[in-house]
Amino acid sequence: MKVICSQSELKANLSLVSRVVPSRPTHPVLANVLLEADMESGRITLTGFDLSLGICTSLDAQILESGKLTIPAKLMNEIVSRLPEGEITLINDDEDESKAFILEIQSASGSFQVRGLGADEYPELPTIEDGDTLSLPIEALMEGLKGTAFAASTDDTKQVLTGVHFIGSQDSLEMAATDGHRLSMIQTTVESGDEDEDDDEESTGSTFDLKDFEATIPARALREVEKMLSGAQDGEQLILHVDESQVIFELGRQRLTSRKLEGTYPAYRQLIPTQFKRQMTVDRKRLLNALELVAVLADQKNNIVKFSLDSEKEQLSLSVDAKDVGSGKQTLPAEITGENLHIGFNVKYLMDGLKALGSEEITMHLNESTQPVIFNPLGGVKMTYLVMPVQLRD
Amino acid sequence: MKVICSQSELKANLSLVSRVVPSRPTHPVLANVLLEADMESGRITLTGFDLSLGICTSLDAQILESGKLTIPAKLMNEIVSRLPEGEITLINDDEDESKAFILEIQSASGSFQVRGLGADEYPELPTIEDGDTLSLPIEALMEGLKGTAFAASTDDTKQVLTGVHFIGSQDSLEMAATDGHRLSMIQTTVESGDEDEDDDEESTGSTFDLKDFEATIPARALREVEKMLSGAQDGEQLILHVDESQVIFELGRQRLTSRKLEGTYPAYRQLIPTQFKRQMTVDRKRLLNALELVAVLADQKNNIVKFSLDSEKEQLSLSVDAKDVGSGKQTLPAEITGENLHIGFNVKYLMDGLKALGSEEITMHLNESTQPVIFNPLGGVKMTYLVMPVQLRD
Repeated sequence: MKVICSQSELKANLSLVSRVVPSRPTHPVLANVLLEADMESGRITLTGFDLSLGICTSLDAQILESGKLTIPAKLMNEIVSRLPEGEITLINDDEDESKAFILEIQSASGSFQVRGLGADEYPELPTIEDGDTLSLPIEALMEGLKGTAFAASTDDTKQVLTGVHFIGSQDSLEMAATDGHRLSMIQTTVESGDEDEDDDEESTGSTFDLKDFEATIPARALREVEKMLSGAQDGEQLILHVDESQVIFELGRQRLTSRKLEGTYPAYRQLIPTQFKRQMTVDRKRLLNALELVAVLADQKNNIVKFSLDSEKEQLSLSVDAKDVGSGKQTLPAEITGENLHIGFNVKYLMDGLKALGSEEITMHLNESTQPVIFNPLGGVKMTYLVMPVQLRD
Repeated sequence: MKVICSQSELKANLSLVSRVVPSRPTHPVLANVLLEADMESGRITLTGFDLSLGICTSLDAQILESGKLTIPAKLMNEIVSRLPEGEITLINDDEDESKAFILEIQSASGSFQVRGLGADEYPELPTIEDGDTLSLPIEALMEGLKGTAFAASTDDTKQVLTGVHFIGSQDSLEMAATDGHRLSMIQTTVESGDEDEDDDEESTGSTFDLKDFEATIPARALREVEKMLSGAQDGEQLILHVDESQVIFELGRQRLTSRKLEGTYPAYRQLIPTQFKRQMTVDRKRLLNALELVAVLADQKNNIVKFSLDSEKEQLSLSVDAKDVGSGKQTLPAEITGENLHIGFNVKYLMDGLKALGSEEITMHLNESTQPVIFNPLGGVKMTYLVMPVQLRD
C-alpha cells in the first residue's frame, strides 16, 4: 500500500470510525481500524466494527499502490490528529516480511512506524445483497431519535428494550423507546414526495414502501446515526438497507451497519391511557429548573419528587424529603383542571423527558396517583412521554 | 441566625470556600462549611478547612439575627448555585431544639431545610497574632507560581518537595520547586516602592522586609492562592502573615491559611551547572508540538524521547521507540553550538516545562548525556528549568 492523502480528511474519517471501535475488544484485531487502499476507485476505505455495530467510510486519495492492513485505531487516531495539516503518505511494504504489518505514516515534520495486524484477520462487515432499500427523511429521523433514544434501556440484559422501535406507515414514521419505567414515542410526518426518488442508482435490491418498515434497532447504533446525520449536507439522502437480521444506514460515503434486535417489541400503545381526569399546563423550563433544584436533595436519597397539584391556587408544588439530610419545596404557577392530587415520580425520568420535549410549555395528563402520566409538548413535534409514578410513603 | 443576602454573592463565596473542603474528611464536620452571621459587622463569614489548608471569606448581608452553624458544603453549594438570582434568606432557629441544626434557605421560588452540625464542633482556623506581615506584589507572585508549582512533587510522602520554596531578597522574590527529577526556579523583580505601603492599617504584628522571608509552602495551597489572585481587583494588596508554622495570604476579605512545610529545602542552586559545552535555541511551540506527537508512542512504553542534536544540519531530531507498538521521529530546525549529542528525557517533564516557559523561543544548555540540562526562555520571565536526562538503552 502506498497512498497520499490530506491530513484533515484522514483525521475526520478516522475519528468517525474510531467511535465504534471497542476499548476492550473480545479479539485484538477488533481494536484496530481496517485500512483499504484501492487504485481503481482512488479511495482509502476505513472500517471499524465491534461485531454488532460497524462504520465504514472512504476518502479520495492518490493511490500509488493498492493494499490493506489493520492498525490500532486509538494510536492511529492520536497520531494523525496531532500531525500538521497538509499531505500525509501511508506506506505498507507487504513484500518485505519484516515490514509486512508495519504502516509508515510520513508527514513534512517526520514519520511514524506503527505495528498492525493482517487484514485477513479482520471480520467482514455484514452486507445486504437482496434486502430492501428505503429513502428516509433526514430531518424527521433526527427529530425522532432526539426524542426517543434517551428512553431506551442501557441494561444489555434487557434485550429488545435497549433499542428504538420503528414503525412506518404511508405518510409517517413512528419511533418509540421504553425501559419499562417510562416510554417516549414520536410520530413524524413524511412527505410522500420522497418516494419518487427511491430508485436511487446506488441502491441495491428492491425499494419498498415506508409502510412496510418495522424494526427494533439498538439505541447505541442510532446515537452514531444521529452524529452521522448531524454532518449531513443539504440534499444528501439517507438510504436504509434492511434484511432479516441487519440494517445499513447509508449517507454519502458513510455506511453504518447494525444488527437488528430480535424479539417482539412490547405493545406500548396499549399502555397509553386515552382518558384523563386531570390536566396541567406549565412552563417547561421553569419546571425543569425546579426539578434540577430539588434533584440536589433527591439525589441523596431515593430520587423521588412529590408533585402536589392545587387547582384553586393554580400552582404546582414539588417537594423532596431526604431523611437526615434535609428537605425542599419549590412552587410554580400552573393551569390545572380536575381535582387536587399528590403524585410521586423519579426525578431523573422527568428531567430526561422535559429536556427532550422541546416546546415552551408542556401539558401533563393525569388520572390517579398510581396510574401512568402523559407529557405532551404544546405545539411542535408530536411527542408522547409516559412516566409511571412511584408510590409515596407518607 | 437570620440573614438576607444576594444569591450571586453567596454562590461566588461558597464556591471559593468549597474548593478546600475535603471530599473524604477525616471527621464529618470537615465536610461542612462554617457560616457565621454577625450583626455588628453586617457580614456573613464562610470558612472551609481540611486541618492543613483553610479559606475564610465574607460578604455583606442584612443580618437580622447573629448566629453560627456548619452545613454540608457540597449540598449547600449545589442548592445555592441553582437558585434563581435575587435575595436569599438564611434562617437557623437555635432556640427550637428540633431545628437547632437545621438551616432554612428561602428564595422566591421555595425553600430548603438542610441539616448541619453545631459550630462548636468545627476546628478553629489558625490565626497569627504576633507574626510578621509583608505586602507581596501580586503580578510577580502569579508569574512565579505559574512557573514553579507544576514542578513540585504530588507524592505526599515526599514532604518538603510537595511545596514551593520562597526566598526573598531586597528587590526580588525567588521561587523554586522540584520533585527530584526536574527543578523549576523563577526570580521575579520586586519594585521597592511597595515597601512604603507596608504599614497597612489592617495588618497586625510588625511588618518585615522581603529579604527576611524564606519559607516552603504546600503547592496545593498555592494553587488556591493562584485562583484567589486571578480574581484580584486593580490596586488590591496581597498581605502575607507569617509565623513559625503558618502562613496566611490575605486579599481583600479573603484569607487563605496554610501550614508551612517543615524540614530543610534542598540546596537546589548547587544542582544548576554554570558552564555548558553545548547550546541550542528552538521555537518553543514547534518543539512542544513535536513532543506531543511522539508522546503518543512514548506513552505506550517508558515515556522516553531521544533528542539528537545535529549542528551541521542545524536540526534537532526527536525519536521514540515503543517496542512491539511502533516508532516515530520528528525533526525541527535548531541553532546549535557544540558537538553533536544523543540524550534521553522523560517526555512529560519536557512538555510540562515548555508549557510554563512562555517565550516564543527557548534555549537549552547542555553538557554530556548524563548531566543536567537547563531550559531558559529567550526574553521575558527569568526562569530556569532543569531536567535530569535518562539513560538511553541503545
